[in-house]
Amino acid sequence: MFKLLDGKVVRDEIKGNLRTVILPMKEKPVLAIVQVGDNAESNTYIEQKKKFAEQIGAEVRHVRLPDAVVEDAVIAQINELNADRAVKGILLQLPIPAGLNKEAVIETIDPNKDVDGLTSTSVKKLWSNTKDGFVPATAKAVISLLDYYGIILEGKHVVIIGRSELVGKPLFLSFINRNATVTLCHSKTNNLKETSQKADILVVAVGDPEFVTKDFVSQGQVVVDVGINSVPANGNKLQEEVADRRLVGDVKFDEVKTVVGALSPVPGGVGPLTVASLFENLVQAVNSRV
Amino acid sequence: MFKLLDGKVVRDEIKGNLRTVILPMKEKPVLAIVQVGDNAESNTYIEQKKKFAEQIGAEVRHVRLPDAVVEDAVIAQINELNADRAVKGILLQLPIPAGLNKEAVIETIDPNKDVDGLTSTSVKKLWSNTKDGFVPATAKAVISLLDYYGIILEGKHVVIIGRSELVGKPLFLSFINRNATVTLCHSKTNNLKETSQKADILVVAVGDPEFVTKDFVSQGQVVVDVGINSVPANGNKLQEEVADRRLVGDVKFDEVKTVVGALSPVPGGVGPLTVASLFENLVQAVNSRV
Repeated sequence: MFKLLDGKVVRDEIKGNLRTVILPMKEKPVLAIVQVGDNAESNTYIEQKKKFAEQIGAEVRHVRLPDAVVEDAVIAQINELNADRAVKGILLQLPIPAGLNKEAVIETIDPNKDVDGLTSTSVKKLWSNTKDGFVPATAKAVISLLDYYGIILEGKHVVIIGRSELVGKPLFLSFINRNATVTLCHSKTNNLKETSQKADILVVAVGDPEFVTKDFVSQGQVVVDVGINSVPANGNKLQEEVADRRLVGDVKFDEVKTVVGALSPVPGGVGPLTVASLFENLVQAVNSRV
Repeated sequence: MFKLLDGKVVRDEIKGNLRTVILPMKEKPVLAIVQVGDNAESNTYIEQKKKFAEQIGAEVRHVRLPDAVVEDAVIAQINELNADRAVKGILLQLPIPAGLNKEAVIETIDPNKDVDGLTSTSVKKLWSNTKDGFVPATAKAVISLLDYYGIILEGKHVVIIGRSELVGKPLFLSFINRNATVTLCHSKTNNLKETSQKADILVVAVGDPEFVTKDFVSQGQVVVDVGINSVPANGNKLQEEVADRRLVGDVKFDEVKTVVGALSPVPGGVGPLTVASLFENLVQAVNSRV
């Protein structure tokens, strides 16, 4: 029997929990989002976060710096937010212009406010499984989705396709910390289809529309699709400029769902949950002393 | 044809290289080793490091603190070494007494002197593959051993058994950074034998004498044994107190070597190389500005 891993249901449950926790707080917890430039995709993500914040009684302070800003000014801005007691979480909206030293900017964030889990302190905590660190939102969302649907992780063989710092690597540690056996695959992996077929749980985060076809999967598998790709609605991938677009994942949904046991859709799977996970981190940050 | 992965040959080559690099230096590079207490095994390791340092023209400054030392005193000691310009590398000899906050002590080490690669800065650099960080010596030794014997890593399937912070996890990232596909296994892994049989390269770091038998391996595999276990020479594992002991690895050498294509011995494999890798890190630290 096929099971749809619906992320919206989980998102709504988390939203309710967050509202309940935030309501009695004396001050609205503030998430500061630092954006450099005016990337259209970033704008969309920031709007989603603002909307979610409103629904749970939190606040987003959107700080937009000009594209041509110098690194010292970005760092000064973050230091100001570090010092601001009302600001509980700080998120640097990525990407930032290539001229800025991304690592230096990220490391400026106070580890107690690092709700995106990108500083070395957060990485080390995930690495050491100390449990008091901030897990990057997408990785956290994937685990929450699986937990909600009662999928056991301990002892299972998880195959992750994609080794990014934002998704693949934190997911790797998150699953290891939950006692799964984990294989991390990427663009240089040989026999990728064969390897992914052997997984109990397959997580795909490659950013390539409908990359995973039925040849990658096997019966009864749990498949989580982390990809969010915007493609022309008529299916012609070469035609980049068309206005009519639709979102697809990294998994060819209609084909894969006929084989596997469970699958998360795109949209409506990991995506909505990611925003919820970010605000779970914000609530964690209210009391954080790492 | 079976190939013995002899670590002593590689160690000797690295030793020669290090001597050549250190000879023209105006000051002998100093490695400070901070030991808390008087653990016999630690004493042996420290002696090995001192001996190696002498052979390459470096210096080990051994700082031994009493077992009952308070945390602030350990931290003050490390801060003193951080400030000492002659000291290029600082190593906290593990284990330290349980009453001390290991993480807090480690994070005190100046990242530029963290030759053991344990601070969050070092972990993040390995995580991000920035290449200017310090890779923990054992992981570095395993990679050096494979490189020396011309074993290609890119695209290969590496299975690591053991997920410790000192060995398994840094090895995982080291192999990912070299474009291998990596599976990390541990005590909760199901079907461990089946999984390890499928590896192109199997690395064992579990600390369990002769854990890996011929049932874990397959023809042509490359097997690296990271274990160093002291067992009674007469083979009776229950008899802990006997004076006559011998070193064995995590791999049942005589049995496994009849199946696989290449295998590192214990002693004489990764062990000797680990000390050499540490001093490679010390030389790297001489010019480090992370």
